[in-house]
Amino acid sequence: MKFASRMECLQDKALLNAMELTETEDMISFSAGFPSPETYPVEEIKESFDQVLDREGKEALSYCSTSGFGKLREIIADRMKNKFGLNYRTEEVVITSGSQQALDMSSMLFINKGDVVLFETPSYLGAVNALRAYEAELVALPTDREGLILDALKKALDQYGDRVKLIYVIPDFQNPTGRSWSPERREAFVEFISDYEIPVIEDAAYSELSFEDKLEKPLSYYDKKGQVVYVGTFSKTFCPGLRVAWLCARENLMEKYLILKNAADLSSSAIAQRQMANYLMHNDLDAHIKWITGLYKERRDCMMVVIDREFPKEAHYVIPKGGLFIWLELPENKDSRELLRRAMAEKVAFIPGGSFYPSGVKNNELRLNFSNLSHDDIEKGMTILGRLTRAYLAE
Amino acid sequence: MKFASRMECLQDKALLNAMELTETEDMISFSAGFPSPETYPVEEIKESFDQVLDREGKEALSYCSTSGFGKLREIIADRMKNKFGLNYRTEEVVITSGSQQALDMSSMLFINKGDVVLFETPSYLGAVNALRAYEAELVALPTDREGLILDALKKALDQYGDRVKLIYVIPDFQNPTGRSWSPERREAFVEFISDYEIPVIEDAAYSELSFEDKLEKPLSYYDKKGQVVYVGTFSKTFCPGLRVAWLCARENLMEKYLILKNAADLSSSAIAQRQMANYLMHNDLDAHIKWITGLYKERRDCMMVVIDREFPKEAHYVIPKGGLFIWLELPENKDSRELLRRAMAEKVAFIPGGSFYPSGVKNNELRLNFSNLSHDDIEKGMTILGRLTRAYLAE
Repeated sequence: MKFASRMECLQDKALLNAMELTETEDMISFSAGFPSPETYPVEEIKESFDQVLDREGKEALSYCSTSGFGKLREIIADRMKNKFGLNYRTEEVVITSGSQQALDMSSMLFINKGDVVLFETPSYLGAVNALRAYEAELVALPTDREGLILDALKKALDQYGDRVKLIYVIPDFQNPTGRSWSPERREAFVEFISDYEIPVIEDAAYSELSFEDKLEKPLSYYDKKGQVVYVGTFSKTFCPGLRVAWLCARENLMEKYLILKNAADLSSSAIAQRQMANYLMHNDLDAHIKWITGLYKERRDCMMVVIDREFPKEAHYVIPKGGLFIWLELPENKDSRELLRRAMAEKVAFIPGGSFYPSGVKNNELRLNFSNLSHDDIEKGMTILGRLTRAYLAE
Repeated sequence: MKFASRMECLQDKALLNAMELTETEDMISFSAGFPSPETYPVEEIKESFDQVLDREGKEALSYCSTSGFGKLREIIADRMKNKFGLNYRTEEVVITSGSQQALDMSSMLFINKGDVVLFETPSYLGAVNALRAYEAELVALPTDREGLILDALKKALDQYGDRVKLIYVIPDFQNPTGRSWSPERREAFVEFISDYEIPVIEDAAYSELSFEDKLEKPLSYYDKKGQVVYVGTFSKTFCPGLRVAWLCARENLMEKYLILKNAADLSSSAIAQRQMANYLMHNDLDAHIKWITGLYKERRDCMMVVIDREFPKEAHYVIPKGGLFIWLELPENKDSRELLRRAMAEKVAFIPGGSFYPSGVKNNELRLNFSNLSHDDIEKGMTILGRLTRAYLAE
């Protein structure tokens, strides 16, 4: 049997999950990329499901329209206006099955085999996989503490010219580094890129998980051309099990996204969407988010205390002001995969940084999730990891 | 902005839905392609959601593994063994977001731009769209009342040679014709195709909706090589709003499907899958299916009575022994789109047959759904359509 050539570009899933599979229940794992299950509002969700099935059961169990449940799209458009100053009409919002599907559809819309996609490095592996499935050539751009480096972007655009078909970025509390772009860099980026006819995918998965009172304006806020496609999700602020996310694009792009959504899975789950809309109408999601970000902030603080106390000073990190991750850098001659091997032997796990470089060139970093662990586990796990790091760095 | 070349292959959604949008509430519509919402077991589903959220709320609201919820996959493997004699292990089942996603993933796995896909004609438009999105060349094969015509298949294989990468078929109560392949044709097809290294997608969306006590053996039952990929769904036997379907493939293929599922949307909804598993453990889905097929059979009978009474004898149909549709043929010089225009003016709708030919060459047929209408509406709507057909054929 012959397979499509794309299959040669996709990593072996067995390899990708090898680490995951070896994690056991008694392990302290800093590997997670999801919110803490204890925060899921199970009772309220149950009540929403009950109400939806009581009042609109037949509609909730039928096919939904391709664009998604109208009321939910309207609420999302309103929320984004109120929180981020974004002006998307309901018709400019399509519901997707997780933000991963929004990335898949975006790759599908813009990428022919061999086209170049520019993205921050390190970056989210799921997006990399979605792009690889369409045989994009992935070109990594460096970032500094303000965001994507515009000189490097310009250089890449000069070098690859018309072959560049897409730019993918996570401006807020990025996965894996936890860093955010500065407002100045956002504005400068959008102004710079508006001279080109290249679409930008803004992955806003973590944008609402700020530990400060202020939310930054999205790239999309500065975009006058309709060049930025905005991708949001309830997976990190609410729960991932419903698979409800959204993509916003101006009308000319939205038409095409709907064709692709229809081809991909006809529509997302009607009942999941109606449950989500019902929850949003009868509960205060922002209060919920305030509560979980308070919790995550405490866990971040706890983790920083242990790092500062237990780790050698050669291990650097930037304080994340939101999101789920701390990104720890070891000296360049050290390999976090070796550290992981030793940590696993003592029942501690994390994701080695090399996983977030599509070309796998940099291996001295670690992604540490803080959102999913109790203070006790953070204290215990990070103390072990600190001791192992000290020993490893002393070699 | 530049789009991927695939976008040129995909029909304008605005066009596709034009007919749908003009349907109004007071219209009698024979257009539907879904089960009758009155049959959805709303109360039982509500109870399942409640139980799942009470007992395993955190897991149900978390990410699911890429392959899907283990218990559900196990139940599906068991059901298929008991109903169809299929021998798939749990590991050979992946849960997909509707069977549309299974078709999308199959296109993704096997199709490079310009590859040839063979399929029955007329056929399901959704599959055609999924294949078009990967720039397949669609080659239609004729069918007779026994199924796909093997001589035509052989001719196409001779003509297109190595370019043929996939065969897509719906052997049971096909959409749109309602026809089923005979057991002899199934066996002969699988034997014939086993000489080639070409995968076959068996879309079994309607297989369980038989109006007779006997279910036919799937193509997959005769397959010794692991060449047939079997796609099933709960959308037609239970409800489509959960988006729970499945794909079965042997291990070497399943590995690759999982990579693609991961790239497409990480995983399907955990709560929808756990609800489905809970329902299946505490309810008798087969009894439910027996009830709905009884209902649909009565509606089919009602429709045949009105057709026989009201339509001119030049309008032909084959009695469907299951599924949701009757396929009506007018004389070859007549155009069902013209009939639709007149019917819409009298508030009756159906899908003109040309929609099921990717190249749109044949326009003298109609797809009539009988599952979604009361006897009164069937009587009233088909009487109007019969009168209009008589007048149109007399011109």
